[in-house]
Amino acid sequence: MTFHTLVKDEVSNVLILISKVLTRNHMKCTWILIPLGLMACFSISDHQTQVSMIERPSYALAIHGGAGVITKENMLEGEEKAYRQILEEALSIGEQMLQDGSSAIQAVTAACVFMEDSPLFNAGKGSVFTNGGINEMDASIMDGKNLNAGAVGGVRSIRNPILAAKAVLEKSEHVFLTGKGAEDFAEQQGIQKVEPDYFFTERRWKALQEQLTKEPGSTALDHSDRKHGTVGAVALDHHGNLAAATSTGGMTNKRFNRIGDSPIIGAGTYANNNTCAVSSTGHGEYFIRFAVAHDVSAQMEYGNKTLKEAGNHIIHNKLVEAGGTGGIISLDKDGNIHMPFNTEGMYRGFVTPNSRAIRIYKGE
Amino acid sequence: MTFHTLVKDEVSNVLILISKVLTRNHMKCTWILIPLGLMACFSISDHQTQVSMIERPSYALAIHGGAGVITKENMLEGEEKAYRQILEEALSIGEQMLQDGSSAIQAVTAACVFMEDSPLFNAGKGSVFTNGGINEMDASIMDGKNLNAGAVGGVRSIRNPILAAKAVLEKSEHVFLTGKGAEDFAEQQGIQKVEPDYFFTERRWKALQEQLTKEPGSTALDHSDRKHGTVGAVALDHHGNLAAATSTGGMTNKRFNRIGDSPIIGAGTYANNNTCAVSSTGHGEYFIRFAVAHDVSAQMEYGNKTLKEAGNHIIHNKLVEAGGTGGIISLDKDGNIHMPFNTEGMYRGFVTPNSRAIRIYKGE
Repeated sequence: MTFHTLVKDEVSNVLILISKVLTRNHMKCTWILIPLGLMACFSISDHQTQVSMIERPSYALAIHGGAGVITKENMLEGEEKAYRQILEEALSIGEQMLQDGSSAIQAVTAACVFMEDSPLFNAGKGSVFTNGGINEMDASIMDGKNLNAGAVGGVRSIRNPILAAKAVLEKSEHVFLTGKGAEDFAEQQGIQKVEPDYFFTERRWKALQEQLTKEPGSTALDHSDRKHGTVGAVALDHHGNLAAATSTGGMTNKRFNRIGDSPIIGAGTYANNNTCAVSSTGHGEYFIRFAVAHDVSAQMEYGNKTLKEAGNHIIHNKLVEAGGTGGIISLDKDGNIHMPFNTEGMYRGFVTPNSRAIRIYKGE
Repeated sequence: MTFHTLVKDEVSNVLILISKVLTRNHMKCTWILIPLGLMACFSISDHQTQVSMIERPSYALAIHGGAGVITKENMLEGEEKAYRQILEEALSIGEQMLQDGSSAIQAVTAACVFMEDSPLFNAGKGSVFTNGGINEMDASIMDGKNLNAGAVGGVRSIRNPILAAKAVLEKSEHVFLTGKGAEDFAEQQGIQKVEPDYFFTERRWKALQEQLTKEPGSTALDHSDRKHGTVGAVALDHHGNLAAATSTGGMTNKRFNRIGDSPIIGAGTYANNNTCAVSSTGHGEYFIRFAVAHDVSAQMEYGNKTLKEAGNHIIHNKLVEAGGTGGIISLDKDGNIHMPFNTEGMYRGFVTPNSRAIRIYKGE
């Protein structure tokens, strides 16, 4: 923990104390409480980004673009700037919607759609290739207000899988549709279909060829050496509702219609107004086995853990012990944001009325 | 709670107390503790079946064949006897394996295979029909020792989907394979394939026709008025390892390659040697949204709840409040068994070295 972090934590504690004392004494202190409430003390320590709120902000949004071996050294020229720019734009789109009174569900959808449309991330347009040289995408979304959820798995022709997941949430009696059926449903709902070549990107194709040459039978997390991954968003809207969304192209060279954690409610995505909203990115099989997204919520609900304690326990203790790499973005009902990861980096960003940051590397 | 239950609970508490006192005083009491340890006090109350263990039994096994509107009044003649017999046989097969030193994974697999092969349950042979008049099956299995898991979704040609899920657990780097890909993988692993007509049963076909006539666009839990459902098993072996398995044909008239909770690790199936093993049956969408199987484990791990408290909370409080019908069979690391459900009945049974029962109705 840096000196900077310690100082920020101390300031945060003092402000909380003052706030509590003032509230307890019923003092007429609106003029003090309002600026206090608006202030967000954020501390950055290794492997995580954290924003601690004293009073619930009117909105909050966090996004990720994948976790993996992401270091300054293996960034190509101009690449870092491109990532930061697209993350900034995704944040701005979501923030604008939240400011305009849109719901958390709408904001996380819009942020994901924007990232799906970028070739930089392994989702939508930039999805990796399967062993068969095609793209199979997974996505899910959950509404913390009523625990409604929607997910699609293994879809090939939907431009924005997160829109299909949202349609499942809103228009279907089911939660999880897959393959051709999910595509048919999406088409019925007017979700845009595209030809398979829409998803062709030179670098994803090369990544597949490399994987096929190197280890024909094995899969690779696209970001294990290519530095790009799954996208996701979590939001808190002005009604106090939480939502989470996740979208991915999965693993390069995957076979057998493998489905990862991204469309699994409880693993890749979870949202509950009583606790938190979580979107995961990483080695999906571990995230499924540890039910990572639900685990954070359950630790808060049943173990009285804070968002930070819960996230650190699953990401830095349990997953590390098991060898599972990745991270989460998480946001609790009070607007606290926590984005822990156990990899070299995670594309991530957050915004509230009084704080905003884009981060890529560890310790940043 | 009945008088019978109260008495049993009192006896149980007294025995636990005696056991604790004797242990604390380091008395030479093997002659007292052995019979105490072998005794199982089981109490039956409405909506649940419970077996409380004082000392961990050398093995334990519980099975279910689905929950739903299962009442004595709507049983056809001979039907009840047929169900009890098949549940008895499934229990005996699993018990024999556990007695012979097989693992919990092997025992739950064998019990499920036996039930999949029966036309009585909505799994394997007796699977319900989709809207398209075919059978699409889901299954999953989890090993509590290492949290390894395997699942298949939407498979059409595999005689025993639970064997395919087990092959995914043991032979694949992935957790969840779907559709044609899962079938190809299973074939490579030598899992038996069958022609689609293997899954044809007259009564499931009629159920689809009825549903199509009644409400063409809607799905139905096969047991909502047909009294038959998903199968599952949980086991504790002599090494103290837990395992859980679940297999289903899903919902009659389902469309769009809908996948329910049965193949979702955390929803339909969960096992962790530190807590418990759980297999779910019911309205899958609710079980996914509440991450039911993982929730029981998380309540025990983070909230220090007993198996019974955890199961009752999710099944009788949370799911009932949300309108989600169904039940679970659960077994903790100490051999306690709890099988709560919020429907009229659940086909269920359990066996330990000193207790054995088959139950169908509520309050039985």
